[in-house]
Amino acid sequence: MRHGMSLFPVLAPEEKSAADYFDESLRLVELAESLGYDHVQIVEHYLGPYGGYSPDPVTFLAAAAMRTTTLRLITGASIPAFTHPLQLAGKLAMLDNLSHGRLGVGFGRAFLPTEFEAFGVDIDTSRERFAAGVEACRALWSGTDVTVDDGFHRFGPITSLPRTVQRPHPPIYLASAMSPQTCEWAGRSGFHLQVVPTITARSQVQEMLAAYREAWAAAGRDPGDAEIQLKFTCYLDDDRDVALRTAEELERNYIAKMTAVVAGWADVRSSAYAGYEQLAGKVRQYDFATSHRDNKVLAGRPQDVAEQLATVRGWFGDVDVSCVFSPGYLPADRAEAAVRMYAEQVVPALGPAPAGVA
Amino acid sequence: MRHGMSLFPVLAPEEKSAADYFDESLRLVELAESLGYDHVQIVEHYLGPYGGYSPDPVTFLAAAAMRTTTLRLITGASIPAFTHPLQLAGKLAMLDNLSHGRLGVGFGRAFLPTEFEAFGVDIDTSRERFAAGVEACRALWSGTDVTVDDGFHRFGPITSLPRTVQRPHPPIYLASAMSPQTCEWAGRSGFHLQVVPTITARSQVQEMLAAYREAWAAAGRDPGDAEIQLKFTCYLDDDRDVALRTAEELERNYIAKMTAVVAGWADVRSSAYAGYEQLAGKVRQYDFATSHRDNKVLAGRPQDVAEQLATVRGWFGDVDVSCVFSPGYLPADRAEAAVRMYAEQVVPALGPAPAGVA
Repeated sequence: MRHGMSLFPVLAPEEKSAADYFDESLRLVELAESLGYDHVQIVEHYLGPYGGYSPDPVTFLAAAAMRTTTLRLITGASIPAFTHPLQLAGKLAMLDNLSHGRLGVGFGRAFLPTEFEAFGVDIDTSRERFAAGVEACRALWSGTDVTVDDGFHRFGPITSLPRTVQRPHPPIYLASAMSPQTCEWAGRSGFHLQVVPTITARSQVQEMLAAYREAWAAAGRDPGDAEIQLKFTCYLDDDRDVALRTAEELERNYIAKMTAVVAGWADVRSSAYAGYEQLAGKVRQYDFATSHRDNKVLAGRPQDVAEQLATVRGWFGDVDVSCVFSPGYLPADRAEAAVRMYAEQVVPALGPAPAGVA
Repeated sequence: MRHGMSLFPVLAPEEKSAADYFDESLRLVELAESLGYDHVQIVEHYLGPYGGYSPDPVTFLAAAAMRTTTLRLITGASIPAFTHPLQLAGKLAMLDNLSHGRLGVGFGRAFLPTEFEAFGVDIDTSRERFAAGVEACRALWSGTDVTVDDGFHRFGPITSLPRTVQRPHPPIYLASAMSPQTCEWAGRSGFHLQVVPTITARSQVQEMLAAYREAWAAAGRDPGDAEIQLKFTCYLDDDRDVALRTAEELERNYIAKMTAVVAGWADVRSSAYAGYEQLAGKVRQYDFATSHRDNKVLAGRPQDVAEQLATVRGWFGDVDVSCVFSPGYLPADRAEAAVRMYAEQVVPALGPAPAGVA
């Protein structure tokens, strides 16, 4: 079980300026490297306080590359549906070079109707665009004189520059919230996985991971090479009550801001997103105590969170974990304390995986 | 006359890796700041050794922001025709925050048929897309609840995040190679100017700058607030012959790589690019001695280049200068020596502008 730090700004300008958010986040990134974290990752979102401070993960990670020397830098996730593959492959390759081969590329399908609408992209084509975008980037990185003609983009033969440091391409992760198809495709193709278990039932996540591992093995790959990242929000304090109160307050804020953006699903039906029309309702019914009990949010003293992670490992096998320690407006010193506490107390308390864990 | 450093990689993978190019360039950026340069800027190009190591200027400048504290960071230029305004405004705003308000945004129209073709963008619409993209970004930065419906993109009302540090928006520069219309528009709108005089006659550049200054003044602006950046390649050595030999060799390489990409103009006619069908011919006829004599390339000992710049100032008035000291494969120590020599010997030798220079 490797441990990384995720950044997901849930901030409006009246709460904290982006300059302060980035300054504080970059200090967290330096701290994470010094404490032995595996990676930092950051989202791509638009149009509001729900992630909107980070419309381009590559921009932030290029800065993070200059503040670190060993930490892996991962997009979590880049959205091919919104960016031309020549640009996406190109800027990610720049980042792979700027960081001397420390890039990991998470690709996501996106799920907010408002984002698709703003980009003028038909949400019903999202699955095809996702697949086409990932394959176009992989082809551009891996090959020379590449031609792309996938129904969405048509160009070539061209050789994408700059060439990536990692050959044939940086590690690729597919982000999936609830799709066994995506997981199966990832396993078959040798891609890694990013999963946010927050709004998905445990059994469904288990089904997704089973589909992934089965497809990975069926393709003749070594199971030890597969990476599965689970993303959690994580709130730590030496005082369990303080941790839980903070967690509940920040989760409610996250949910309030998410509610505003997923409200779009009240009016949208898309064959590409079966079940998403219930998303607004699911989000509305969010209950912190239930979510905490179900280990969808990590909160408490270090030993409490270590217990939660041991349970998570029991449920899902040998996964990696990537934690959001602050949505951005936790005071900087408290966010730093949490990053430190996780590395110094949670990870050691967790101990090695029990035998039999996949 | 302020002085900046421009980066324009003219490199193929077999010549130098992008990792080495970026490492060396970032060291030049640090050196430029320590020597009092005004800014660093970098291009956006695709599809080949002619600039193709920099498909996204924002990615490089985000890294440069972490290596500097006062240097201005300028895109030279970003191409709105190829990027959705939500993304372009968004990532540039991230950079303005990461750099604490040191961003300058150069916008360009692009001019390579192969790039338009790869992006599936009709080159005949380039002028309208350029104008629409610049106005969309300016509106997104300046206002809240912005609606865009310009025939190319339609979205809103939305408030673009993150908000820029510089209010109402970072300084905007319009890049123009040979278009008095663009210059007039820039002056009227309060935008600054980036001009590459390489392939344009002196009289035409003078006409462009006159149109710009006239429109600027007609709008009631203070002439002292206008910024005009002229971009040059610059080759310096204590030995004049070495400087000229190096200059000729590197210019020939630049021209050879440019020839490959502008060959596209042999088969293209676009009402939006009157005269560009002659571009391939112009480039083919390139003669170093003529170009040097006409002060389109700066080369020689420091005092020679200072004389050239004095002449340039006599021709064009009080302009700023942004120099490419190496296309990337000049050995790093020679590039660093040139950056140092320019700041320590050319700039002081140039002296103050004579009275009467605009």
